[in-house]
Amino acid sequence: MGKEQLLVIGGVAAGLAAAMQARRAAPGLRITVLEKTADISYGACGLPYVVSGLIPALERLVLHTPEYFREQHDIDVQPHTEALEILPARSVVRVRANGERREMGFDSLVLATGAAAVCPPLAGHDLAGVFVMRQLRDGRRLLQFIEQVRPRDAVIVGAGYIGLEMAEAFRARGLNTTVVESTDKMMSTLGGALRDRVVDELRGRGVEVVLGERVSAFEGRGEQVARVICESGRAFEAQVVLIGVGVRPAVEIAKDAGLEIGETGAVATDANQRTSAANVFAAGDCSETLHRVSGRRVWMPLAQPAVRQGWVAGANAAGAMPEARFAGVVGTNAVKVFDLEVARTGLSLEEAQAAGFDPSIIEDETASRAGYYPGGAKILTRVVHDKSGRLLGAQMVGREGVAQRIDVYAAALHANLKIEELNQLDLAYAPPFAPTIDPILRATKQRDEG
Amino acid sequence: MGKEQLLVIGGVAAGLAAAMQARRAAPGLRITVLEKTADISYGACGLPYVVSGLIPALERLVLHTPEYFREQHDIDVQPHTEALEILPARSVVRVRANGERREMGFDSLVLATGAAAVCPPLAGHDLAGVFVMRQLRDGRRLLQFIEQVRPRDAVIVGAGYIGLEMAEAFRARGLNTTVVESTDKMMSTLGGALRDRVVDELRGRGVEVVLGERVSAFEGRGEQVARVICESGRAFEAQVVLIGVGVRPAVEIAKDAGLEIGETGAVATDANQRTSAANVFAAGDCSETLHRVSGRRVWMPLAQPAVRQGWVAGANAAGAMPEARFAGVVGTNAVKVFDLEVARTGLSLEEAQAAGFDPSIIEDETASRAGYYPGGAKILTRVVHDKSGRLLGAQMVGREGVAQRIDVYAAALHANLKIEELNQLDLAYAPPFAPTIDPILRATKQRDEG
Repeated sequence: MGKEQLLVIGGVAAGLAAAMQARRAAPGLRITVLEKTADISYGACGLPYVVSGLIPALERLVLHTPEYFREQHDIDVQPHTEALEILPARSVVRVRANGERREMGFDSLVLATGAAAVCPPLAGHDLAGVFVMRQLRDGRRLLQFIEQVRPRDAVIVGAGYIGLEMAEAFRARGLNTTVVESTDKMMSTLGGALRDRVVDELRGRGVEVVLGERVSAFEGRGEQVARVICESGRAFEAQVVLIGVGVRPAVEIAKDAGLEIGETGAVATDANQRTSAANVFAAGDCSETLHRVSGRRVWMPLAQPAVRQGWVAGANAAGAMPEARFAGVVGTNAVKVFDLEVARTGLSLEEAQAAGFDPSIIEDETASRAGYYPGGAKILTRVVHDKSGRLLGAQMVGREGVAQRIDVYAAALHANLKIEELNQLDLAYAPPFAPTIDPILRATKQRDEG
Repeated sequence: MGKEQLLVIGGVAAGLAAAMQARRAAPGLRITVLEKTADISYGACGLPYVVSGLIPALERLVLHTPEYFREQHDIDVQPHTEALEILPARSVVRVRANGERREMGFDSLVLATGAAAVCPPLAGHDLAGVFVMRQLRDGRRLLQFIEQVRPRDAVIVGAGYIGLEMAEAFRARGLNTTVVESTDKMMSTLGGALRDRVVDELRGRGVEVVLGERVSAFEGRGEQVARVICESGRAFEAQVVLIGVGVRPAVEIAKDAGLEIGETGAVATDANQRTSAANVFAAGDCSETLHRVSGRRVWMPLAQPAVRQGWVAGANAAGAMPEARFAGVVGTNAVKVFDLEVARTGLSLEEAQAAGFDPSIIEDETASRAGYYPGGAKILTRVVHDKSGRLLGAQMVGREGVAQRIDVYAAALHANLKIEELNQLDLAYAPPFAPTIDPILRATKQRDEG
């Protein structure tokens, strides 16, 4: 295809995965990666653990330097370089670096602009001490702030993944910590008994959890945040606030270039990670993907699919043959909440209903190890299925054995297994690892027996 | 079908599972369970952990008493009752209990006679201090012996599962422990780098491991074992010896009754757990089963399939409609060796060759957690596949995240996935649980890239 210059916009997970895979596919290609911020190649998912102190320095999250990419892989990674505009018809990107504007031509382009933390425009949201947590610089600012201001009370707005991880981080730093969540759910979809387990864990570790309260404003003392005010009138002291109400795809540059944006608000892509513009690909948190269970295009900004979409985009942007394909997601993720493992895959009951299924649920609680073997824990499982017995999703909560067991459900969703087929799986048993009948077999036997 | 009396021979895992499932299927059925020994309803897999002292008493392994079965489920469980002979034509079993012989009639019969530890007829094998470890009474005898004799040196013959678990148990009791294995493998199929990891763990924990030495005799001092002699002439001091060279199906009574015995030496059964005799079923460690990967009948005496075959046999023996089916196994198992998790599923390279495949292997070593997250471990994976990319098996060794990850491979084997499909799975990621690209995705990506 005679590609000569690959341009990648975004120097973190998906963007660098694309660059690396393009290099593997096309040793002679010129590859340039543009990164708006000072930071490239870091594991943003580790930020809460730096804040907690478990990881001793922010630099530990950095995988590679620009020198590494240049010297080892002949990839030119340019930090502090912002892509301002894409002109697909001319195959040009307008960039700004060091205060200068210039144009860069491309034969193929990979958009990996990621997602941005949502900061609702509430009164006082720009006070010092109000943070989001998404990029390395967010972590840097928060750590500096804590060092200087030494806050005593923290409020976290939103009980999503980042909110819960940050609750643990703040507690580890000795802060009085309150999580304020506007819905009655944890992590947007976790309700009922599973939600209660998470709330119990948080409260047991000294986190105040307030459900069904919507934050309406932040009050300051001078420039500094001092209180978080709810619509109900309730107020919480806070010298530091973490807003974890969600993220949105960073698609402004794609939209301005006339690229098709999907219903989800993210860049529309096909299974080859192609956008609507010729030779322009998108990958990671700025792009849509296929949900294999609902069959719909979804936006699921998570690190593992981001990297893999990056590989696909990079291979195809480099003209790899046969074309690389991304098979889509089934909606798997996991989070540690203090000593609890919380994981899910597929659709929740409500998501299944919204996707047009007529779903039922099975709930089961089983030990993680043989009953006589010390140190086990209860695993609470919720399995969602349709009337034909097709597996639609699963959620699990427990102190061990959850994060990898959810992967069995994920594999079953990929393979389109029915509950009764899951119940036939030959799973590993040894007293330290599982009861004789694994929690997965226990849960999926329920349907059998009504 | 007018069944009135169900007889079950064997009062442990498969037998009691059959009785319980029959009770669920047929509330009015008379159900009698005959158990030769004094012990019923116990978790034999826990024996090494009682010997080690981790579990404080043998009684902890007992789940239920005969009273429980009688009072809660109207199941008559008779310990100390040996089935001597089955007369299928007359639907009668000859039994011996309390020194008396009698006949018991049945409408349907479930054979769950289990497996017996192999004790090779070497000189001195009947010396005091030479043990096998299979039934509760084996554990009782060993514990009494250790209490009385206070041995200092232990030899374990055979590096199978029970041998390795018992090595850990003996070390926990402060014994000098030597494992003597006649082959160059661990757990009969684990070779190469995976074997080396297990050997390193054992040696690191003070266990002497001797590979390629065949034991030829036990020498005594009086009635007591004192030395283990190898064919090469090497000898090891031992006041206690554990023979863990394998088990064989306990099929004498089935054979005598004219039931078909498969090539594996275990009772031949179909997917409904029916034997060749009308109204006679078999389940658990005495019976064969289908290996879904090789397509062959195999003998795989493990607790999880045993219980589930018991359920199937019990349901069908009670005349359940539709008939229950056992889907077969894929050969999954796991064992803890000190701090190491060792697990496998499907076929090893050699097993795949023997089954007529033309297999290849991928070997990959990856971290169990994000690189920056403390406390992770390396997971070594070997994946076996054929030329078309069909998954045939996997083996894994590591200090965490192995026993449940193997279940993903097991699910993939059930669903007949190819390596490239495994590589498409959407698996859970969070820094404490996995690296961004899960070890399963890393290993299965290798094929992709040659």
